[in-house]
Amino acid sequence: MSEAFDAGGLADRIAGGEPLALARGISHVENESDGFEALLERLDGRTGRARRIGITGPPGAGKSTLTAALTRHYLDRSLTVGIVAVDPTSPFTGGALLGDRIRMVELSTEPGVFIRSMASRGSLGGLATATREAADLMDAAGYDRVILETLGVGQAELDIAVSADTTAVVLVPESGDGVQAMKAGLMEVADLFVINKSDRPGADRLEKEIAIITSIRFANRPRTRPTTTRRAPTGPTTTRRAPTGRPLADPVPEVEAEWRMPIIQTVASEARGVEELADHLDRHFDWLTSTGKLASNRQAARLRRAHDALLRRSQRDAQRIWRRFSPETLDSGASPYAIARRLYEDLK
Amino acid sequence: MSEAFDAGGLADRIAGGEPLALARGISHVENESDGFEALLERLDGRTGRARRIGITGPPGAGKSTLTAALTRHYLDRSLTVGIVAVDPTSPFTGGALLGDRIRMVELSTEPGVFIRSMASRGSLGGLATATREAADLMDAAGYDRVILETLGVGQAELDIAVSADTTAVVLVPESGDGVQAMKAGLMEVADLFVINKSDRPGADRLEKEIAIITSIRFANRPRTRPTTTRRAPTGPTTTRRAPTGRPLADPVPEVEAEWRMPIIQTVASEARGVEELADHLDRHFDWLTSTGKLASNRQAARLRRAHDALLRRSQRDAQRIWRRFSPETLDSGASPYAIARRLYEDLK
Repeated sequence: MSEAFDAGGLADRIAGGEPLALARGISHVENESDGFEALLERLDGRTGRARRIGITGPPGAGKSTLTAALTRHYLDRSLTVGIVAVDPTSPFTGGALLGDRIRMVELSTEPGVFIRSMASRGSLGGLATATREAADLMDAAGYDRVILETLGVGQAELDIAVSADTTAVVLVPESGDGVQAMKAGLMEVADLFVINKSDRPGADRLEKEIAIITSIRFANRPRTRPTTTRRAPTGPTTTRRAPTGRPLADPVPEVEAEWRMPIIQTVASEARGVEELADHLDRHFDWLTSTGKLASNRQAARLRRAHDALLRRSQRDAQRIWRRFSPETLDSGASPYAIARRLYEDLK
Repeated sequence: MSEAFDAGGLADRIAGGEPLALARGISHVENESDGFEALLERLDGRTGRARRIGITGPPGAGKSTLTAALTRHYLDRSLTVGIVAVDPTSPFTGGALLGDRIRMVELSTEPGVFIRSMASRGSLGGLATATREAADLMDAAGYDRVILETLGVGQAELDIAVSADTTAVVLVPESGDGVQAMKAGLMEVADLFVINKSDRPGADRLEKEIAIITSIRFANRPRTRPTTTRRAPTGPTTTRRAPTGRPLADPVPEVEAEWRMPIIQTVASEARGVEELADHLDRHFDWLTSTGKLASNRQAARLRRAHDALLRRSQRDAQRIWRRFSPETLDSGASPYAIARRLYEDLK
């Protein structure tokens, strides 16, 4: 907790598009500085314009490279992009390689791009909330697209990914089979699949596996049964494309009501397939809008925000009372549970 | 939250060593059933006898196999063993292989062994607390050793490992180099290292790396400077062994005040090196006891329990008030933060 700041003034400057104000605002949210919720509340009415894209997947899938390539694509079309990258300080997963970092640094000097890393060390529940709120601030600051890039390892990280309007799950031929992705809970969060580094052996095999798994999964669902569309041929077109290819399961009559999960092969380091990915992201957003799902999803997200803000508030007060507690009391032989109970009574 | 139970009666039955009562008690703790804290409080005075051993490491290091082999070793010496295995439902890490599961199932039918899996899906903060409390119940039930087996991936999992008296970090030659383990935060939690599957190539190289890294790390610490002992030769002795081998750094005069971090090579599937591991675990426990660190560590753990119980209590109340809230309020255009604030006022 740091000292209070002028939430109203900062909110205006963020809404006015000042990158420095945005950076400061995100820090206040991350540190839960006094007044950070007032800032969020003031900017609440200004959010909702950005399209939020979650990019997730296992370590080494090339998420950062894909994020960079997608950002470049948007910049070329005069769209501004905010990026929230959740840094995996976590074990044996590596984190971004130097090359990815360099790519990101290059991007960060572009006007129209705002990049923010959030550290995942410490409380992950808190991180998911703070990450979503960083995206809110970027949204309020007027960025057209907000990309949430997280490692698809762990529930909290997946929670971040699904807070986006559209979630792309990135796999690579080496990342193991589709069954593994399913076990990891990635199937549940995916609105579309990207097979990155698809010039390596095994890309087509992985695509088939994902297609089969998604068609089985959805066939078991009674009412919403999206079918899987095979990857559309990559081409130099910039117009949006209707779903192409033949579905693996039976054709579903009311196509518009169903989302056909695309599987897109990319080589992000050479920007191959990135335009197609962007098209499918637009297509998904249009589908969300036309079915009314965008509104209902976002309403659910607001509810979730209220829930998380309530829990955070109660946690913060509990931490505050804990800091005032002198541990010598423990020597009296009171059980930890009795102490917690007594402190909690004080709190109330 | 399930219905209330007779905490006093259950506590007596757990303390009396009834496995069924223990299983039920752990479920109450895991589900936070009404009265679960009363149960913990009643058993609080009965804990502290068991030696707690944390076993952690990257996916595929053979933690389950090592746990099983160590348990067998203890059983052969008429010691009873409680095992809390934190199940990684988490992504791309695999979880235990079928063979390990079978080994565990075999063990679970032995008298003197109590095995409990805790699912890691959902809130990890809550899991660390519940896991520690499951160990408390096993301790109160009279098990001589309580093994906490967790994946060394993620802060919460590491928190579980360090709640033990002694934490063994298990690596394998294939799990990458020592630098990776260091990055993962495993160096900080280790009281000793196990290089499992040490019949595979690279075991000696990994051992050297760990020895160098630990000696550098500890050399930078001003006062407590444990040196690294090279692995003692494996042999058929069952007596406890004084630290052997020559330290890599300068010899430290006051040997007893310092813990020399052992690096032990094992092939857990053939029980090779397991006796040596058990000896070093005993040696570490003796060292903790003689230096007074056991008492201070356990006192710190009690403090931590009080803290966690306080936070859990406040979370639970916040969740309760949330369940009473009707989301229609959101339509009135109130911001999520305003709603959280209002609900929190109600709570207080």
